[in-house]
Amino acid sequence: MSNFEKTKYMFHLPQGMIYLDGNSLGPLPKAAAAHVSDMMSKEWGEMLITGWNKAGWMDLSTKIGDRVGRLIGAEPGHVMMGDTLSIKVYQALASALDLNPTRRVVLSDNGNFPSDLYIAQGLLKSLGPDYELRVVNPEDIAENVNGSIAVLMLTEVDYRTGKLHDMKALTAKAHAAGVITVWDLAHTAGATPVDLAGCKADFAVGCTYKYLNGGPGAPGFIYVSPQHIDSVSPALSGWLGHEAPFAFDLDYRPGSGIERMRVGTPPVIALKSLETALDIWDLVEMRDVRAKSVELCELFIKEVEARCPTLTLHSPRNAAERGSQVSFRFAEGFAAIQALTARGVIGDFRAPDVMRFGITPLFINESDVLAASVIIEDVITNDLWDQPEYHIRSRVT
Amino acid sequence: MSNFEKTKYMFHLPQGMIYLDGNSLGPLPKAAAAHVSDMMSKEWGEMLITGWNKAGWMDLSTKIGDRVGRLIGAEPGHVMMGDTLSIKVYQALASALDLNPTRRVVLSDNGNFPSDLYIAQGLLKSLGPDYELRVVNPEDIAENVNGSIAVLMLTEVDYRTGKLHDMKALTAKAHAAGVITVWDLAHTAGATPVDLAGCKADFAVGCTYKYLNGGPGAPGFIYVSPQHIDSVSPALSGWLGHEAPFAFDLDYRPGSGIERMRVGTPPVIALKSLETALDIWDLVEMRDVRAKSVELCELFIKEVEARCPTLTLHSPRNAAERGSQVSFRFAEGFAAIQALTARGVIGDFRAPDVMRFGITPLFINESDVLAASVIIEDVITNDLWDQPEYHIRSRVT
Repeated sequence: MSNFEKTKYMFHLPQGMIYLDGNSLGPLPKAAAAHVSDMMSKEWGEMLITGWNKAGWMDLSTKIGDRVGRLIGAEPGHVMMGDTLSIKVYQALASALDLNPTRRVVLSDNGNFPSDLYIAQGLLKSLGPDYELRVVNPEDIAENVNGSIAVLMLTEVDYRTGKLHDMKALTAKAHAAGVITVWDLAHTAGATPVDLAGCKADFAVGCTYKYLNGGPGAPGFIYVSPQHIDSVSPALSGWLGHEAPFAFDLDYRPGSGIERMRVGTPPVIALKSLETALDIWDLVEMRDVRAKSVELCELFIKEVEARCPTLTLHSPRNAAERGSQVSFRFAEGFAAIQALTARGVIGDFRAPDVMRFGITPLFINESDVLAASVIIEDVITNDLWDQPEYHIRSRVT
Repeated sequence: MSNFEKTKYMFHLPQGMIYLDGNSLGPLPKAAAAHVSDMMSKEWGEMLITGWNKAGWMDLSTKIGDRVGRLIGAEPGHVMMGDTLSIKVYQALASALDLNPTRRVVLSDNGNFPSDLYIAQGLLKSLGPDYELRVVNPEDIAENVNGSIAVLMLTEVDYRTGKLHDMKALTAKAHAAGVITVWDLAHTAGATPVDLAGCKADFAVGCTYKYLNGGPGAPGFIYVSPQHIDSVSPALSGWLGHEAPFAFDLDYRPGSGIERMRVGTPPVIALKSLETALDIWDLVEMRDVRAKSVELCELFIKEVEARCPTLTLHSPRNAAERGSQVSFRFAEGFAAIQALTARGVIGDFRAPDVMRFGITPLFINESDVLAASVIIEDVITNDLWDQPEYHIRSRVT
């Protein structure tokens, strides 16, 4: 049995469903419910308050942080779990701005996930009217990096097209101009290999409910580079990031290293669910996941293009520029995604006309990709026209 | 069977343990592990991404918010669950300051939980050098409320002594001086009745892992009054607080009402655990919980004082001024709490010499209080002196 045959077997996938949406919410590891239930009964139930030490709850956020860190090329001891991705974006951006105090501009692109832009807008508004969020087209980022920029904040993989930014080149360019980088790895972690340490990225953040299979609302993470961690002054200065939380001092003093990026109480139950998913991730290397992902994406593109000439590839054709998803544009994309769902092929729709499919080698294989392609063809060719409940706009108007 | 006999039976309490630490981490509802495990298998496992609508995950934060809201006297539709208490303090304080833009001082007291002060320090530092956190003694709060204060930020129940602030009087005094209030209900929610609506409190925040029994790391909550909710501009402007999250606009527009206080993705698994606890809370009225709590606290104080003259009551003697905990000062408090733990009576220690016991009527009754008092007497009188592993300072030095 190959490694990926093994991992596929470790997820629960509903009968008759081909799940191409692991880039939105990953499927349930078979062991997760029992692991969480066990923790609740044996640790919470029996140890109660002593579980913080006896069951190691307090260390979960850093231990799991290191396991996520391995998948994103982070140095051990530099990833902290907790909160949500939005909060981690806030935390990273606030810290990054604080490290570059004479500059006022945050540079991002319109392919960034809107939440990152919203969080930046809220933060910058509170910092004062001289702060600016400058949003350009993704392809114009490099030429806009200059000595006036405080922070370059980008999502490495565009959530719509799957197009990759060149993290290494952009980080180097940013550093040459004295710019601090914040990388959102929402569609990177578990999707494509990334080498935070090698790229000398300053901050990175991400979520664990997509490719990492942590479950709905699973915690976020933050990475801070060795260069910065000891000088970072956390904006979200919560008591568990304090140097001595149980001294109950009245004044905040940041904890050592990545500990200072803790905020409140760790989400123990959610972390336990994620732990089961990482038991599966521990079995694979990101380079193998990437190789398989490229193979499956190529197959999917070839099959869908051959079968459905009305769909236009929206993702980069060159695999090296593409994350682990494939998007097509189709005028009836919204109806098509609904019709596909009814046939058991789950993708998702992003306005105005993007059909997005996540390719996740841990539980999707060649047969799934081929079967999905056949069903997509059938839906586009037949179902959409036969079944008026899909409200084809071109028939109605 | 009385209501509290019923609720006691609905919690798992380890054999031989008298758990007087429900004010730190509440015990496991017997139904919780199965409820969470069921959600994971049947909702996450089978519905995957469609669970957000089909299983109602997106509405959990407000539905549960209203159930918590009933316990704290909030108007329906004014409590949002999510994140941690620390994040909710940040969110509330930032919003409160924004509503009082010409003032620069946040008033709090040194009996506030340190995390609230830390969070305020981080926030004010980022807002600029003219902002000030003014920390006074709890009894000096009223006389320090004046027209220079932007926000009065207090924890209603002092975590050390259990002493209550007069929320109604202080809120009225604050409003008369044009001051916005932020109330931390960490030791109030599920402990003592509070009437946020009647007090016209502006903001309130709290956690659910203490008296509310949500589990380790259970989500926080935020309350925003009807007067302010439509004018609040969220500092933590995440995409799920957007007016139309799935429009993926590039600019943030706050959602309607309490929706804008959402930040990132709701912690579904943790919320499901909390749901089981609230099924128990739904069976009781806070006035009955309060009456029982007062009765048990009085009994505990009477018994411990009669049996252990070396312990000094640290909580207010007048029940009307006390939350649902009883604290004693004792020079060997640290050793005593360890020795008590070994005998199955779980309380906790707060430096320098405070022994703290939570009285939680949902699962603690008269027999527990009497048995605990007998064991406390025995530990203080015998164990501490017989068993050198407790490292009695007075013997060692």
